[in-house]
Amino acid sequence: MPETKSYDVVIVGGGVAGLTAALYAGRARLSAVVLEKMAAGGQAVITELIENYPGIKTVTGHDLSQVMEDQAKSFGAEIVFEEISEIRVENRKKIAIGSEALYEGKAMILATGGEPRKLGIPGETEYRGRGVSYCAVCDGAFFRDKRISVVGGGDSALQESLYLARMVEKLTLVHRRDQFRGSKILQDRVLSNARISIVWNSVVEEVVGNHKLQGLQLTNRQTGAKDFMETDGLFIYVGFEPNSGFLQGLVDTTADGYIITDEKMQTSMPGIYAAGDVRKCPIRQLVTAASDGAVAAVTAEKYIEEQAHFSFQPSAFSSQPKNLL
Amino acid sequence: MPETKSYDVVIVGGGVAGLTAALYAGRARLSAVVLEKMAAGGQAVITELIENYPGIKTVTGHDLSQVMEDQAKSFGAEIVFEEISEIRVENRKKIAIGSEALYEGKAMILATGGEPRKLGIPGETEYRGRGVSYCAVCDGAFFRDKRISVVGGGDSALQESLYLARMVEKLTLVHRRDQFRGSKILQDRVLSNARISIVWNSVVEEVVGNHKLQGLQLTNRQTGAKDFMETDGLFIYVGFEPNSGFLQGLVDTTADGYIITDEKMQTSMPGIYAAGDVRKCPIRQLVTAASDGAVAAVTAEKYIEEQAHFSFQPSAFSSQPKNLL
Repeated sequence: MPETKSYDVVIVGGGVAGLTAALYAGRARLSAVVLEKMAAGGQAVITELIENYPGIKTVTGHDLSQVMEDQAKSFGAEIVFEEISEIRVENRKKIAIGSEALYEGKAMILATGGEPRKLGIPGETEYRGRGVSYCAVCDGAFFRDKRISVVGGGDSALQESLYLARMVEKLTLVHRRDQFRGSKILQDRVLSNARISIVWNSVVEEVVGNHKLQGLQLTNRQTGAKDFMETDGLFIYVGFEPNSGFLQGLVDTTADGYIITDEKMQTSMPGIYAAGDVRKCPIRQLVTAASDGAVAAVTAEKYIEEQAHFSFQPSAFSSQPKNLL
Repeated sequence: MPETKSYDVVIVGGGVAGLTAALYAGRARLSAVVLEKMAAGGQAVITELIENYPGIKTVTGHDLSQVMEDQAKSFGAEIVFEEISEIRVENRKKIAIGSEALYEGKAMILATGGEPRKLGIPGETEYRGRGVSYCAVCDGAFFRDKRISVVGGGDSALQESLYLARMVEKLTLVHRRDQFRGSKILQDRVLSNARISIVWNSVVEEVVGNHKLQGLQLTNRQTGAKDFMETDGLFIYVGFEPNSGFLQGLVDTTADGYIITDEKMQTSMPGIYAAGDVRKCPIRQLVTAASDGAVAAVTAEKYIEEQAHFSFQPSAFSSQPKNLL
């Protein structure tokens, strides 16, 4: 029978959102644990150079994560390396089930993040951060006046191509079908953008480089023709997978699995909050994830305060409020 | 006739929200101007020590603001010291009217912030940041196990007292009436909290200290009795005033003057966004203001992209989408 450990707040996921939630929970003098399966910092850790985190000129993802981890710990949060397989709610307790122990909280913050879907081709992982990116808003500025490629055909691929076209010299959008899935209005804008050219019916077979990205090996799916295309950058937009599968319907999500919250980060389950990439949100940036974490922790604090009052001080409700006049 | 200067994005207010919006606009290769009446950094500038900005262990408000200003400039944003008296919208152009020039944008981001209402008593300004605070979530952790006072009687004063009571040794809530304005449920919780004691019918006349805060000079409004109360910290919660008066109804606000937005920071006026303290939002922290700025800039970019298409490429709409099959 695994041990049960109790906290005020159990935070599932130790990326930027989770660590910031821990910092804010700690400052509110709540006991908090951060449960992280890999390394604290989440997706940020694998980012080489961050130039768009407000207040820090340049930083590596590793260093930024390290500071956030130190901050969380300095205000008393515990960080445990543990993969959570399931979340249960019993008598208002929110319980995260790990392999080593059960972690029980008065409140819980889900900050499990997500990952861009990969093409799964040779060179993709190798050149990530050295030419291959999954985020135009994060990395577009590194490709000013360069020639880049985008892979995808949905709304994200089209929207981000329009964003990138503003700054690059030339953008080639590679799509495996002969028409886009994305909305008509975005299609129209992409098709009429002079800086964007389109390679239809084609897939990227390999990312080719020599320390840095040099080009893409393409295959036309209709003709079988192979082609090598020189490019300075490759943005891959073939989907994003929020890490919400283990929730098994505990809280409401979109069809794509993003957890739905209100602006206070409240999910459909009282006392459970979501923050960062796993949440349905307008943009996925380090600073927005951090902000989510701060909001979730402050909302959780109010909830815990409220619950304490309801559970342990019923007398305040059975008696009439004092007449102070 | 004052000069008119044109930009993609006009950002009114150079605090954390405005500077982050400028950073993100610059990275999207939009031309941007930040119009700031005082000093870039806004309310942050007057903060001595910041410990809760995720990713930076400790920093002064001045230094944090300086880095954000440098970041905004490094991506091409202009910063102009100018007080804006009015905003107009003419033919989809958003125009900020200053004393030196008119600043015209395809989109506009309102990041004018706000200020906590002051008591206006001797010592209040002098001891701000050295015992006097207007933000429990920002500064509460500095008062761990100390004796503090809170002034106010509305929801904020009650809510923040409950937050602070978790970490301090003793909290005295000073209120000028004989009952609170705040909601009944918060009143109940405050009244039943063992760490909170209440001084009714009393006003703080003076903040007294010797380099650091020592105590408060109180007067009982009913009896006229004067009393000196020792305290390590004073949290003032007598209201917050968003800087939205100059908008004169241009965008929807709450009754208190906070600009209403959706999660993409869109106001009721297309192409005008709001970010940071001036916005109706769950918490007012540096990191949430920064996040708002990032979201507003990305939303503005999409709007400008859309408008460019509608205005300058009508042919894309008059012709049928190409049949690509």
